[in-house]
Amino acid sequence: MSVQPSLGVCYFPEQRDESEWQNDIDLMVSMGLKKVRIAEFSWALLEPKEGGYEWGWLDRSIDLIGAAGLEVILCTPTATPPKWLIDKHPDILAVDANGQPRKFGSRRHYCFSSAIYREKMSGIVTAMAQRYGQNKYVTAWQADNEYGCHNTTRSYSKYAQKAFRVWLKDKYQTIDRLNAAWGNVFWSMLYASFEEVDLPNQTVTEPNPSHVLDFYRFSSDQVVSYNKQQVDILRAHSLGRDMIHNFMGFYHEFDHFKVGQDLDISAWDSYPTGFLDMFAFSDEEKARYFRQGHPDIAAFHHDLYRGCGNGRWAVIEQQPGPVNWARHNSVPLPGMVRLWTHEAIAHGAEFVTYFRWDQARFAQEQMHAGLLRPDNAPSPAYGEAQQAAEETASLPRAETTKAKIAFVFSYDALWLYEAHPQGAQWSYPDICFRWYSQLRLLGQDIDIVSSEMDLADYDLIVIPSLPVVDDALVEKLKATQAIVLMGPRTGSKTPSVQIPENLAPGKLQTLLPLKVTQSESLPPNVSETIAYKGGSFKAGVWLDYIDSDLTPLAVNALGAGVLYRNDNYLLLGTLPEADFLNQILRDLANEAKLPIVDMPVDLRMRHKGACTYVMNYGQAEIKLNENLAGAKSEYLVGTANVPSAGVSILGEQGQGNK
Amino acid sequence: MSVQPSLGVCYFPEQRDESEWQNDIDLMVSMGLKKVRIAEFSWALLEPKEGGYEWGWLDRSIDLIGAAGLEVILCTPTATPPKWLIDKHPDILAVDANGQPRKFGSRRHYCFSSAIYREKMSGIVTAMAQRYGQNKYVTAWQADNEYGCHNTTRSYSKYAQKAFRVWLKDKYQTIDRLNAAWGNVFWSMLYASFEEVDLPNQTVTEPNPSHVLDFYRFSSDQVVSYNKQQVDILRAHSLGRDMIHNFMGFYHEFDHFKVGQDLDISAWDSYPTGFLDMFAFSDEEKARYFRQGHPDIAAFHHDLYRGCGNGRWAVIEQQPGPVNWARHNSVPLPGMVRLWTHEAIAHGAEFVTYFRWDQARFAQEQMHAGLLRPDNAPSPAYGEAQQAAEETASLPRAETTKAKIAFVFSYDALWLYEAHPQGAQWSYPDICFRWYSQLRLLGQDIDIVSSEMDLADYDLIVIPSLPVVDDALVEKLKATQAIVLMGPRTGSKTPSVQIPENLAPGKLQTLLPLKVTQSESLPPNVSETIAYKGGSFKAGVWLDYIDSDLTPLAVNALGAGVLYRNDNYLLLGTLPEADFLNQILRDLANEAKLPIVDMPVDLRMRHKGACTYVMNYGQAEIKLNENLAGAKSEYLVGTANVPSAGVSILGEQGQGNK
Amino acid sequence: MSVQPSLGVCYFPEQRDESEWQNDIDLMVSMGLKKVRIAEFSWALLEPKEGGYEWGWLDRSIDLIGAAGLEVILCTPTATPPKWLIDKHPDILAVDANGQPRKFGSRRHYCFSSAIYREKMSGIVTAMAQRYGQNKYVTAWQADNEYGCHNTTRSYSKYAQKAFRVWLKDKYQTIDRLNAAWGNVFWSMLYASFEEVDLPNQTVTEPNPSHVLDFYRFSSDQVVSYNKQQVDILRAHSLGRDMIHNFMGFYHEFDHFKVGQDLDISAWDSYPTGFLDMFAFSDEEKARYFRQGHPDIAAFHHDLYRGCGNGRWAVIEQQPGPVNWARHNSVPLPGMVRLWTHEAIAHGAEFVTYFRWDQARFAQEQMHAGLLRPDNAPSPAYGEAQQAAEETASLPRAETTKAKIAFVFSYDALWLYEAHPQGAQWSYPDICFRWYSQLRLLGQDIDIVSSEMDLADYDLIVIPSLPVVDDALVEKLKATQAIVLMGPRTGSKTPSVQIPENLAPGKLQTLLPLKVTQSESLPPNVSETIAYKGGSFKAGVWLDYIDSDLTPLAVNALGAGVLYRNDNYLLLGTLPEADFLNQILRDLANEAKLPIVDMPVDLRMRHKGACTYVMNYGQAEIKLNENLAGAKSEYLVGTANVPSAGVSILGEQGQGNK
Repeated sequence: MSVQPSLGVCYFPEQRDESEWQNDIDLMVSMGLKKVRIAEFSWALLEPKEGGYEWGWLDRSIDLIGAAGLEVILCTPTATPPKWLIDKHPDILAVDANGQPRKFGSRRHYCFSSAIYREKMSGIVTAMAQRYGQNKYVTAWQADNEYGCHNTTRSYSKYAQKAFRVWLKDKYQTIDRLNAAWGNVFWSMLYASFEEVDLPNQTVTEPNPSHVLDFYRFSSDQVVSYNKQQVDILRAHSLGRDMIHNFMGFYHEFDHFKVGQDLDISAWDSYPTGFLDMFAFSDEEKARYFRQGHPDIAAFHHDLYRGCGNGRWAVIEQQPGPVNWARHNSVPLPGMVRLWTHEAIAHGAEFVTYFRWDQARFAQEQMHAGLLRPDNAPSPAYGEAQQAAEETASLPRAETTKAKIAFVFSYDALWLYEAHPQGAQWSYPDICFRWYSQLRLLGQDIDIVSSEMDLADYDLIVIPSLPVVDDALVEKLKATQAIVLMGPRTGSKTPSVQIPENLAPGKLQTLLPLKVTQSESLPPNVSETIAYKGGSFKAGVWLDYIDSDLTPLAVNALGAGVLYRNDNYLLLGTLPEADFLNQILRDLANEAKLPIVDMPVDLRMRHKGACTYVMNYGQAEIKLNENLAGAKSEYLVGTANVPSAGVSILGEQGQGNK
Repeated sequence: MSVQPSLGVCYFPEQRDESEWQNDIDLMVSMGLKKVRIAEFSWALLEPKEGGYEWGWLDRSIDLIGAAGLEVILCTPTATPPKWLIDKHPDILAVDANGQPRKFGSRRHYCFSSAIYREKMSGIVTAMAQRYGQNKYVTAWQADNEYGCHNTTRSYSKYAQKAFRVWLKDKYQTIDRLNAAWGNVFWSMLYASFEEVDLPNQTVTEPNPSHVLDFYRFSSDQVVSYNKQQVDILRAHSLGRDMIHNFMGFYHEFDHFKVGQDLDISAWDSYPTGFLDMFAFSDEEKARYFRQGHPDIAAFHHDLYRGCGNGRWAVIEQQPGPVNWARHNSVPLPGMVRLWTHEAIAHGAEFVTYFRWDQARFAQEQMHAGLLRPDNAPSPAYGEAQQAAEETASLPRAETTKAKIAFVFSYDALWLYEAHPQGAQWSYPDICFRWYSQLRLLGQDIDIVSSEMDLADYDLIVIPSLPVVDDALVEKLKATQAIVLMGPRTGSKTPSVQIPENLAPGKLQTLLPLKVTQSESLPPNVSETIAYKGGSFKAGVWLDYIDSDLTPLAVNALGAGVLYRNDNYLLLGTLPEADFLNQILRDLANEAKLPIVDMPVDLRMRHKGACTYVMNYGQAEIKLNENLAGAKSEYLVGTANVPSAGVSILGEQGQGNK
Repeated sequence: MSVQPSLGVCYFPEQRDESEWQNDIDLMVSMGLKKVRIAEFSWALLEPKEGGYEWGWLDRSIDLIGAAGLEVILCTPTATPPKWLIDKHPDILAVDANGQPRKFGSRRHYCFSSAIYREKMSGIVTAMAQRYGQNKYVTAWQADNEYGCHNTTRSYSKYAQKAFRVWLKDKYQTIDRLNAAWGNVFWSMLYASFEEVDLPNQTVTEPNPSHVLDFYRFSSDQVVSYNKQQVDILRAHSLGRDMIHNFMGFYHEFDHFKVGQDLDISAWDSYPTGFLDMFAFSDEEKARYFRQGHPDIAAFHHDLYRGCGNGRWAVIEQQPGPVNWARHNSVPLPGMVRLWTHEAIAHGAEFVTYFRWDQARFAQEQMHAGLLRPDNAPSPAYGEAQQAAEETASLPRAETTKAKIAFVFSYDALWLYEAHPQGAQWSYPDICFRWYSQLRLLGQDIDIVSSEMDLADYDLIVIPSLPVVDDALVEKLKATQAIVLMGPRTGSKTPSVQIPENLAPGKLQTLLPLKVTQSESLPPNVSETIAYKGGSFKAGVWLDYIDSDLTPLAVNALGAGVLYRNDNYLLLGTLPEADFLNQILRDLANEAKLPIVDMPVDLRMRHKGACTYVMNYGQAEIKLNENLAGAKSEYLVGTANVPSAGVSILGEQGQGNK
């Protein structure tokens, strides 16, 4: 499917004076925007008292937007149940791990396991779907907002406990099976019935990791079922409209692949500078990219959510300037809003909508920029969005490029390591991000996939770490001709968090004849010196002690192997530092005949159809040489001199619209 | 009013054997002390069971003290309600932000909003006032002790919630006005009645800053009303006596200007080495001033509380040696107790009373020094206090010097930033302290004032940051001939924490034609290089992006203005590092014709009448040159060689008593 | 008593398939093991429903083990009450300092003060004792497991509160005495009855240290009485068997000397690499000893628990490879398991049993190594244990060497400093460990003793710090000819945490005519320069200001004394850094005619009878020179070249079995 991407904006008419609406909409049209997302968080406006719906303002705003030729993405407002509902049913509130209620006064104040909330949520969604499901201007729905934001996936309420027991009974059928799967004979944790199983919080010391992991899986499934409940209602009343949810960055407490299966479009909210400040980047990176965000933040999530959406995805909230919620909130460099827009489109976004139209003068997010300033003058992003809209419209329609590299990402793996860390430096999200980043620095396009997805048609499969490897994956790996690189701890656990009877890498031993006999986790100031292909490198964080008759490709100072290969399968027993990782990936990409383009540290590229997008995340201009630009291309956008925060787009000779 | 300052001591006769009292008092007299503060924390002694008052010990101790010619400052003991009262009314206890009671077992275990506590507090205060209100030896009262200490201003009890709703109704009259002021349309936070408004704790993510700020204001007002309730009772029974409360250092959770209005004397408790260790000083400063305290700690609070007290203020607890409550507790350098005493008097203190007479051998503060050691021998402070008393008595009576510089400090600003930080490095108290310190390093006398106070008769008005600027202040600034320097974020908010319709600096745009269109908060390792008057300086923490037709006085590396001036009004859009700040203040002081005396880093001076006090906070002797000492002075105390921890006092020729 | 030490293993037959038991036991025998510890944590297996005992599996496993010639150490399973018991009596759970229950789902989920748990614990212990008390294979019992692990000594339950009041009444008899002892006149904390006394948690600010210390003492006594209750039951039914508990490393919340008095053998669980990672070692030490543990970790506890056990002690859980519970978990260097085994035996362990036989594939500790790998193959420790067993059997039977140095360690001192720190850098456990380590670096054997124990027959008595010094200790010190070195804060408090009337060092002033008039606690970046015997050294953390007519042996830069001596008594007023401490201890050891052997930093030695054990904790081989090896010895094990992680054992000429 080849869709002409379009731009749009998130709009909150209920926060504006109605006299401003028409002018707002006229400006949107004049900028080249095509989509307007509305009604998020508006429950208290739509139902100010129980059952007393007030549709008027929404009717009128949809009419005005639609009449102007803009498509409406309509949000359900269920992330913010109104105060009267909470006061009537305080048990709707989630409960934190310390047993404290998470009260009204901000947002997402509900427990996914609250039956009464499911009923009330269904009520408002049904009412909206009935009223607007057939509205000709409404082309898509967004269900709720940012599931899990503010750590709301996991609730420790009595309703969660009850639902967890049901979930466990459904999974294990008998309590003996649960006891065996969890190894509850250890520490006399045996249960006589499912009714005895508590949530794994407030235990004296760490609870059983099998218990924790099942709770995390249950919590994720509660989000899946909640989303499906909403989407089913909406689909029933609003056939033909796209069902969307807006995922977040660096958030992992539910399985986005699973939620994505119930959606038409997996959208996400892209705030690169905020993410830079709040997540695991070094101080040096935080300074270098203070006003740009790290160059792989957006791309990583684009590739991930394209995977979650089976190819259909979008950026539904695009940062248009400073945000309010990071510890330090920068003003993006001039050009970054346009750059981020093109980066998304290069990766195949169907649309990019900015958050938000106007900067609100009040409440929690008053310091969050919009396309309009608080005084209704255009903000710097206004012009950049307009330019991006024009450029996007001018480019040839193109398929999203299917990558040659499959990069396996697993939410279940992440939860397993969270439940069972064994090493304080081990961070699965960080490992994945760093491995992904090295591939991007080699100029590669990447598909981030789940291990359940089709892995055929790839030339290189990268699995940074996957503790649970099932038969189906082993069969897919057996069937592939691709080179398969697997990182430490892969195959190290059964699905219920036990050590495989044949030790790690478990079922993978049919592909790679080796055993991990011991493993150690390293502190920050202890590293291993590794010899690989004549070079000396560093590795750390984790070290597997491996028994094998294979000759290792890399060995530590004691001569113990840390990288083994059998046929096209490679297993790393440690975490390489950047240059070591780069060398391994380079060697494998070369072997797989993937064209390598070494990126300057601040530059990134992405192919889309015949176009090559080049983005400069640095603070200085970068001149593209022949290696970077290719010989036969022409510049559809920009030139060979890519300024700071600039974008150049190259296409085949004669392909451009210019 | 010109008062001859005197010294005194805090005394706990109930903690001594009665046989020791007379000797204690005789020693006090022989040292030259004039005032004795007693009865703090003594509720369980005065009322060991409900209604069963035991006045005898207090009668006798007042009689002995008074008979010796000493004035009694009598404390109400309401900071420590006895156990029988708490057991009878456990709801007196405050509740912390996590919903947990703050139990009996130390002190300040009450909620300012507890109606039953207000009643019981009124009971003991009335009983004391009736008994001692007309006592000839009692010349002043101290109400309670250190309001807010141990973060007790803000309680999250059900009584606080109830009182908060009443306070809100009183302020907003209708719930629609509250909803509008807070912008509750955002995130569906709309309330249908005041009864729906909870306290802003335990919310899923950050609550509305407008909600938080109103809660902070309410909490402050509860302290104001509590204090007024006590003082009103005392005044009714004890006409002509001074009403005092003892404020703390670096504590800001209630508005000390407002409490001060209901007092006669705003006193405070000065513990420079403890404050050094516990507050935001650098490791280098903590080492340099380990046994002295930073040279501006005491002075800052002297100037602040002189402002709160409309000129009448005192140090009611002066550190006499090591304390017990800091993470690291030093022994002050020999001389520091005398130095601190003179510093207070130089700033206009009516009296300085040491805390405490004897070092208790028991309980929480047994490692807190007194004028006597635990074995009743004199501690090092004993001799220093005696010397300070003699010197003070020998100096001419003098008016407190009214400064030429007004330095605007705002508790409301502090709370607003706390509720709405936007940048993790932004610390309003730290900014104020650093700006104040640079002025002191230029040898200046400073009045710290609230923005509500009269600003006429100053030559330089320094407003480090003041988010809410009202019409009255604008009028005062319009009327002044003084140079007015305002720091970043000034004028950036409405009173209900909204962005002004015309953007920051809001109403100040009538004085300064410019707009802040964007703002960013910087992390520690990102700074701006600023060009100012040919020099290159550093700034950071905050950066405003300013639109103006004015020519900036200072620009960043991109040429964007960070310091603008119109007439006598200047606005800084960033936070200058020390040398940049020094240069700006120096230039403005020069322009205002304030005589600048560059202080060596460890030296400070303060004028009082015709006297100049010079204090050496360093570890080495400092020789005063002519610039520092002035030409026409003679040394009333000390010489031109000021030793470590030493004081010299200069006066006009022929003025000294020596 | 001279016992031939033996080795053994901790075994969990209930976690194995019964078909594996015989093979497991045959392997144990073939390795040379002698003891098997079983049944720990097995309550849910023994009593799967209330009163429904299932002894069969335990009967069979004991029979098999015993029939193979192995001794059984039988554990009571009371560290893990089963879920049905908790669900029936949820009040069994302990409560944390925040008032939250500490729930089921791991282990140690009980409050020592729960009367119902005492009853239920008694029930299962009695049932086991009745069934197995006379079993011929059962030669010892382990009561419960690791008292206090996961901070479970102190519970804030209502049952603890009730028991605390009883304990206080028993101690003080009248509430007036308690009020006086605690100094409750301070802050009106006076109680009218014992029923008014709460637990010292959730107070507004710090509670009275006297209150806290009594609560800590009470909590320790609850462990003592709980242990005694179990041991009394066991002894009544199982005469002649050794009563054992397994203590931990670096754990101090109960008095191990007191618990040890009710045991026959004070055993402990030795995990050197885990302790290295989790306790106060420098980053440099953590890197240097990452795979070995710091060389004094095991030895310190060996010497301590030998003291607790009055000479009878053992290592009942010896780390056999990586553990799971540290932040970073290393694989020990090859040889370390054998080295640790010999280190224990050198210090006089009666036995060393490895934890555990097999590495479980499931639950919390699945990454904890065993002698078997999870696939039942031998782990590296298997061969090392076998070698250690052979070597141990080959060595001559020898008495544990009684040391010439008594090192006084006090749990009560530790709690007092915890309740009353006065300086954030002050850490009593760290001070003790560092002082101990310096003595070991001088090649000394050390007895760690309590101050209540006999101190005669020592040549050097080292008391790093002991705040409470009673008459009995003073008498013992008066009687000794030994040199006595005492560190700062010694004698600084009365038993109820008051300053002595004659100031510190209190009663010690009869030995040392001096007074500490002031004390200060120093931050990390402030240190004192000390002149001692012509050298210049550093000291910090604490500094006492001392009045004395004695001539100090060491003075700070201001000439103030920090080390005083009178006769054979020395008092230090500060904490010396390592080289200063080494010099002082060296000088005193020389004076006491203790032969000094300067150890290379990674080497340690210990004498046992005529044998000298030498252990290399370093990563490189160390060659023993004559000074280290002695002239007249031969190598019973190893050679003069001690490899990394190697052991050499020297004996008198002709003494060896080889």
